[in-house]
Amino acid sequence: MQPLLEIPKLRPEADRPDAIRLAASMAAFRPSVLREILGRAQREDLVSFAVGTPATDLLPVAELAEAAARVLAETGRRALQYGLPSPALKAHVVELMAARGVECRDDQVFLTAGAQQGMDLLARLLLEPGGAVLLEEAAYEGIRLAIRGFAPRVLTVPTDLRDGLDPDALEDRLARGPRPAFLYLMAEGHNPVGSTLPAAARERVVELADRFGVPVLEDDVYGLLRLDGGDGFAPAAAPPLRALDGRWVFYLGSFSKIVAPSLRVGWIVAPAELAGRLSVLKHAADVDTTTLGQHIVARYLDTGALPAHLDRLRAEYRRRRDAMLAALERRMPPGCRWSRPRAGIFVWVELPEGIDSSRLLEPAFAAGVAFCPGEAFAAGDPERLRRCLRLSYADNPPERIDEGVARLARVLAEAL
Amino acid sequence: MQPLLEIPKLRPEADRPDAIRLAASMAAFRPSVLREILGRAQREDLVSFAVGTPATDLLPVAELAEAAARVLAETGRRALQYGLPSPALKAHVVELMAARGVECRDDQVFLTAGAQQGMDLLARLLLEPGGAVLLEEAAYEGIRLAIRGFAPRVLTVPTDLRDGLDPDALEDRLARGPRPAFLYLMAEGHNPVGSTLPAAARERVVELADRFGVPVLEDDVYGLLRLDGGDGFAPAAAPPLRALDGRWVFYLGSFSKIVAPSLRVGWIVAPAELAGRLSVLKHAADVDTTTLGQHIVARYLDTGALPAHLDRLRAEYRRRRDAMLAALERRMPPGCRWSRPRAGIFVWVELPEGIDSSRLLEPAFAAGVAFCPGEAFAAGDPERLRRCLRLSYADNPPERIDEGVARLARVLAEAL
Repeated sequence: MQPLLEIPKLRPEADRPDAIRLAASMAAFRPSVLREILGRAQREDLVSFAVGTPATDLLPVAELAEAAARVLAETGRRALQYGLPSPALKAHVVELMAARGVECRDDQVFLTAGAQQGMDLLARLLLEPGGAVLLEEAAYEGIRLAIRGFAPRVLTVPTDLRDGLDPDALEDRLARGPRPAFLYLMAEGHNPVGSTLPAAARERVVELADRFGVPVLEDDVYGLLRLDGGDGFAPAAAPPLRALDGRWVFYLGSFSKIVAPSLRVGWIVAPAELAGRLSVLKHAADVDTTTLGQHIVARYLDTGALPAHLDRLRAEYRRRRDAMLAALERRMPPGCRWSRPRAGIFVWVELPEGIDSSRLLEPAFAAGVAFCPGEAFAAGDPERLRRCLRLSYADNPPERIDEGVARLARVLAEAL
Repeated sequence: MQPLLEIPKLRPEADRPDAIRLAASMAAFRPSVLREILGRAQREDLVSFAVGTPATDLLPVAELAEAAARVLAETGRRALQYGLPSPALKAHVVELMAARGVECRDDQVFLTAGAQQGMDLLARLLLEPGGAVLLEEAAYEGIRLAIRGFAPRVLTVPTDLRDGLDPDALEDRLARGPRPAFLYLMAEGHNPVGSTLPAAARERVVELADRFGVPVLEDDVYGLLRLDGGDGFAPAAAPPLRALDGRWVFYLGSFSKIVAPSLRVGWIVAPAELAGRLSVLKHAADVDTTTLGQHIVARYLDTGALPAHLDRLRAEYRRRRDAMLAALERRMPPGCRWSRPRAGIFVWVELPEGIDSSRLLEPAFAAGVAFCPGEAFAAGDPERLRRCLRLSYADNPPERIDEGVARLARVLAEAL
């Protein structure tokens, strides 16, 4: 009898291309981290900054229960069966996009099981096996997972703690070639860095995309969580890249961070002529985006409750961000620096040279605090990110945030 | 400015490998068929046999509404947040599997967004770009979509109208090589053919899988819908392949056909040592299987309502199948043959030589009946399946089934 690992695709990872080894090394610790953290989340004494869960205490449970009850009572059979994407939900997305400064039509909106599936489908649409992809040096781990099956050549551009992707480096990278299948970026509330791309840089990125013929995947899941200025649906100061270009920019949005993750409803804004191909890829992936989730979100949005809910989220995330920044300022040892996010839920911390943040993980768990090591977000050379870590302030109240940062600072002080 | 189709991955399909051209040709009509059918489903006068939707009138709407209300009232925050796979649901799956004659443990159960996602994840786990896959000549279109991104070499074995996959042909195929990344099959309620694999053939397939070292993806989404004999959870006469082998057989199950499609909850039974890799692939695809869907299904199963619901489904599907077989017998012109399914929801019809069923699609729409052309299921040479078509009896009452078959027979008579 043949051992399972002798199946060609299941051979040990050592002989796989770089990108796969990288992803595999992450796989080696990430699920365990996730499991650990989610498993221990009930532990009253663990302060977790590690996972990008939105605020559990702010989930609009009663409103969604009401929406679900109405959907099931009034159109239960339709909501439980397979179905075409909900026109009502698409109309709401068009409205939301208009509030973000993006003009689009229903037939450019493609519904997905969250933004992660949007990335997965767009990678399948745009990327060939072994093709090149352009990422920021520190990139959301989900995009790296979405491309890893293609064993891509990953090109990178540096990310600034405040201003995000460096447009000069981008131009240089594109001029040197090869042309990547796409550039993935987050202009607002960057995961993991917490940066915001300035308006002028957005214009340059769009100009470069057009000049070099490179599609841009703009992940804007935190775009409506701009913490400074703006209210309700009022757009943040700088519009997303998709507002500047409807040809090269593929926009990724989601209700996970602004309504509830488990509904698994997100969207892509893409050229209408690609809808047919995306439909086929979507069918291949999971047939349908949950009709029930779509109907519940649409019904919730029908009530007009979202703008006030967004205000509540932003006000609370602002308090939590401020608590985290104040705690870092007060407690971290010298030689550390961190981002000051103007949107989203993440702070990126650079520890002094020579520290490997993943080695702090176990002592941190023991001390009752969890974070995500920087290495998990390394699109290129992980070496530069080993001393970094990502903290989410979304899912803890200010007092707990202060306590968690105090614990982290103690662990760090011992390691120094 | 560069036209979008000049992006390498978006170049016209003509120069793509065979499998992709094939899938693309399907893509060219399938979404339009689906859209047409789902779009017209409200049209009172269309009898659709085309899509594999379970019976809309038998969906347990009130019970699921009750389950959803309880879940949201009692554990709303947890059910709306990201989360680990539900242990309660896994325990239910283990029990269901035992009823199917399969012994497995919680840690061998991997929850997915329906069986389609199971296929997608297993293809990513097992298949290399350009690798070989072994399918039945007539295969569920979803598996072909799940593998198309790998531009695989598709090997085929013939499918018999009654007994499904031919084990002699399988042995010959495997002996000749190359070793495929996996064999995909449906032993019970075959989609599209409606065949059931005899017990002896199941044993041979498992023996061959072991001898040649080939994983088997056993799609058993209709396994609990055995129409002749058995009740409640009582297993059908022949156990699934997974009951015979826990090493090479990956089992795919789903609640879509037995509870409700829009909950998007299915499962894989796989070796526990692959759970880590599957978790990473799942994260890449869509992060989480909807926590809400999982909780609703688990709560519904807690009530113990499923065995009686399955009895109701089976009794009604038996009536509908019998109505379709009787109508075909009474109305179809000579020279046609069809399967007599003992499980599932599909009848496969072979029309007389020389007829191309996809050419009948438009006249059939005009006459008020819809079906799925055989070509859509062609894993290999589509030529042999052009004269075939697939009919689903699940979602129409007996009188409508008779009327639909009468319309189809008239369209066919005109074409002969």
